[in-house]
Amino acid sequence: MTSYLEMTREELLEEKERLEAEYKKVKALGLNLNMARGKPSPEQLDLSMGMFDLIDSKTALISGGTDCRNYGDVDGIAEAKELMAGFMDCRPEQVIVFGNASLNVMFDAVAKAYTHGVLGSEPWCKLDKVKFLCPAPGYDRHFKITEHFGIEMINVPMKADGPDMDIIEKLVSEDAAVKGVWCVPKYSNPQGITYSDAVVRRFAALKPAAEDFRIYWDNAYAVHDFDGEDKDVLLPLLDECEKNGNANMVYEFCSTSKVTFAGAGISAMAASVENLDSIREQISVQTIGYDKINQWMHVQYLKDMDGVRAHMAKHAAILRPKFEVVDEILSREITPLGIGTWIKPKGGYFICFEALEGCAKVIVKKAKEAGITLTGAGAPFPYGNDPKDATIRIAPSYPSVDEMRQATEVFVCCVKLASVEKLLSE
Amino acid sequence: MTSYLEMTREELLEEKERLEAEYKKVKALGLNLNMARGKPSPEQLDLSMGMFDLIDSKTALISGGTDCRNYGDVDGIAEAKELMAGFMDCRPEQVIVFGNASLNVMFDAVAKAYTHGVLGSEPWCKLDKVKFLCPAPGYDRHFKITEHFGIEMINVPMKADGPDMDIIEKLVSEDAAVKGVWCVPKYSNPQGITYSDAVVRRFAALKPAAEDFRIYWDNAYAVHDFDGEDKDVLLPLLDECEKNGNANMVYEFCSTSKVTFAGAGISAMAASVENLDSIREQISVQTIGYDKINQWMHVQYLKDMDGVRAHMAKHAAILRPKFEVVDEILSREITPLGIGTWIKPKGGYFICFEALEGCAKVIVKKAKEAGITLTGAGAPFPYGNDPKDATIRIAPSYPSVDEMRQATEVFVCCVKLASVEKLLSE
Repeated sequence: MTSYLEMTREELLEEKERLEAEYKKVKALGLNLNMARGKPSPEQLDLSMGMFDLIDSKTALISGGTDCRNYGDVDGIAEAKELMAGFMDCRPEQVIVFGNASLNVMFDAVAKAYTHGVLGSEPWCKLDKVKFLCPAPGYDRHFKITEHFGIEMINVPMKADGPDMDIIEKLVSEDAAVKGVWCVPKYSNPQGITYSDAVVRRFAALKPAAEDFRIYWDNAYAVHDFDGEDKDVLLPLLDECEKNGNANMVYEFCSTSKVTFAGAGISAMAASVENLDSIREQISVQTIGYDKINQWMHVQYLKDMDGVRAHMAKHAAILRPKFEVVDEILSREITPLGIGTWIKPKGGYFICFEALEGCAKVIVKKAKEAGITLTGAGAPFPYGNDPKDATIRIAPSYPSVDEMRQATEVFVCCVKLASVEKLLSE
Repeated sequence: MTSYLEMTREELLEEKERLEAEYKKVKALGLNLNMARGKPSPEQLDLSMGMFDLIDSKTALISGGTDCRNYGDVDGIAEAKELMAGFMDCRPEQVIVFGNASLNVMFDAVAKAYTHGVLGSEPWCKLDKVKFLCPAPGYDRHFKITEHFGIEMINVPMKADGPDMDIIEKLVSEDAAVKGVWCVPKYSNPQGITYSDAVVRRFAALKPAAEDFRIYWDNAYAVHDFDGEDKDVLLPLLDECEKNGNANMVYEFCSTSKVTFAGAGISAMAASVENLDSIREQISVQTIGYDKINQWMHVQYLKDMDGVRAHMAKHAAILRPKFEVVDEILSREITPLGIGTWIKPKGGYFICFEALEGCAKVIVKKAKEAGITLTGAGAPFPYGNDPKDATIRIAPSYPSVDEMRQATEVFVCCVKLASVEKLLSE
């Protein structure tokens, strides 16, 4: 195959004609497939159904001295703190266990800073300007939270081993309006990048101008490796921050949404004891406590980190072939043509396709017309605005392997057609 | 028995000596009983354990087209909306179903108004002054929420059939800084008063100066009757508001915390469709959704309002004797002495004892020293400040009937002693 970038105008026109015919055939198939959302498949959800065999009307729902059915233990049962500390490589006293959605915990963390400040700082709602750094492409739901609170978002480019730390160091140390940075440090959403030790250490050594600056460290894919051996390892940021005298600088989040049930897992936050004391005080006003029966069930089912790893190996067996089929087809069809790049991730939930500049929206639109729903172009960027209009997030988890194969073939056709059109228009 | 109010100084001194001897004996018993918190007893929690026999690893957790295990349906599954609409006498489209704590839903409702306003109004954090009306005695956790956001709380006296509506009507219509009123309209916490039809109708007909004024209607004890026949009936406020063209004026809240599990029930909010659309938009930023497996389990177990009523009759059988023993002892020991009053409630979780002015703190302290923990004096008032120092909340639900008898006997001794001391000091 000849790279499109090396084709003559005549060759491109010929290719376009061929692709249009192919695209017409694809549309006629009347497909209806969804690669938009990082949703676990039913088969993955089935992996945790055994949880419900551990409980019946005779079960004693007791953890330590706590009746999990009643009020009390607003910050979670001790056994759940221990379990979730394992996810985040930290100590149980650095953990609060919450309800089913870590997104809600992150929203509340920002909301609390907005209404009450952070450890005695001025509430953000009283400030003229609050800014967040947003390594991008990133997670659209993070950006929606900061947008909701009118926080100015600043794009930071991603490099192969994490965000561009030169930019982050400069902005954090120079601008006291910069109050936070959103990170998905392991198998990042959507690129699948794990931050290198050097990047984590540079985060831990930041010297923020703002005392209420926090790193919002969403360790969503902490245990979500495709291979128990050949996996990425993330340096624990809390430890590194402590070593630098920056113990208060990080809020870490995680959940079992993609371990047990997407809609009914448990979530947790890790932070310094000083940060947690303040948050505990606030949640004591906010709630009578989170669902401790679900916490108890998760502990009984997953037991400990060995249990979690064994469980995640079953997820990997389901997910890996779906990612492989995408990688295989893209490698075969796209790489020789020079019209797209991506990173083959070792875990997580996404593949991030980088098309020729100006092609992402057109590709998503063409795919939609052929029955393939992709995440909206631009979604992985603050304000939904991809400056290059080039990034497309692919979520292979929900469809079957066969469906993913079919959907990726259609996607490839759309990428080719959009690329040819783009090259011809130049 | 002679009323203390009619005793001579000599008689009071004699009585005091007798009571001091009795109190000394009581202290020597080394009791350790808690009447402070409206917690269901383990026996009550056992009533819902059958829920866990309805689910095992083979159960299809499907509601309509929704897999309850996965993401989706941010505002709750349809069957749960229908169930919770029954609690609040409204239509399912007026309901959003949340997680386990209705307190959290109320906190978030106030927080959202603080950060973003209500249906386009100015966010409260941008205003110089925001006020809430607080019928008192009331629920301490309500007052803690408004205090947390720096909202000025104004006491409104309670009458036999609800808050003093003359005061509420005047303040709501005259002062645009008044943005809300906290209500527990059925079996009110702590007095056990149910608002009369006339009071509900006056609420529904309010003409607020502030467009973003809402009635925060915490229908916590909607189905918590002690007797299926001889029970209080609350007029549905949402209906009445609609009739008055005030559909947007009420946020209603309820939960199954005292139906199934105090720490692991489901909660709901009812409001106009316009209010809910706005709230739905906000929670779509805040979370990926609430625990739908728990919603599903609640629907399977409780089924419908007939199921709920049958279930609540079992709670009543456990609770009623505890309330009766308190009422019986107080009637026998306190009424003839003229040193305290209370209302005998037909449901709910509390008995509210009204002591002689200036005696509440002393009684609570004396009880504590004798091993009986009561809710702190003042707690049922904004800022923890009972202007008369007279109100004591008694929570009979958690201890056994025998323990309640013992605790009430001690309480009575403390009331008598404190009253004699008070009368002698005048």
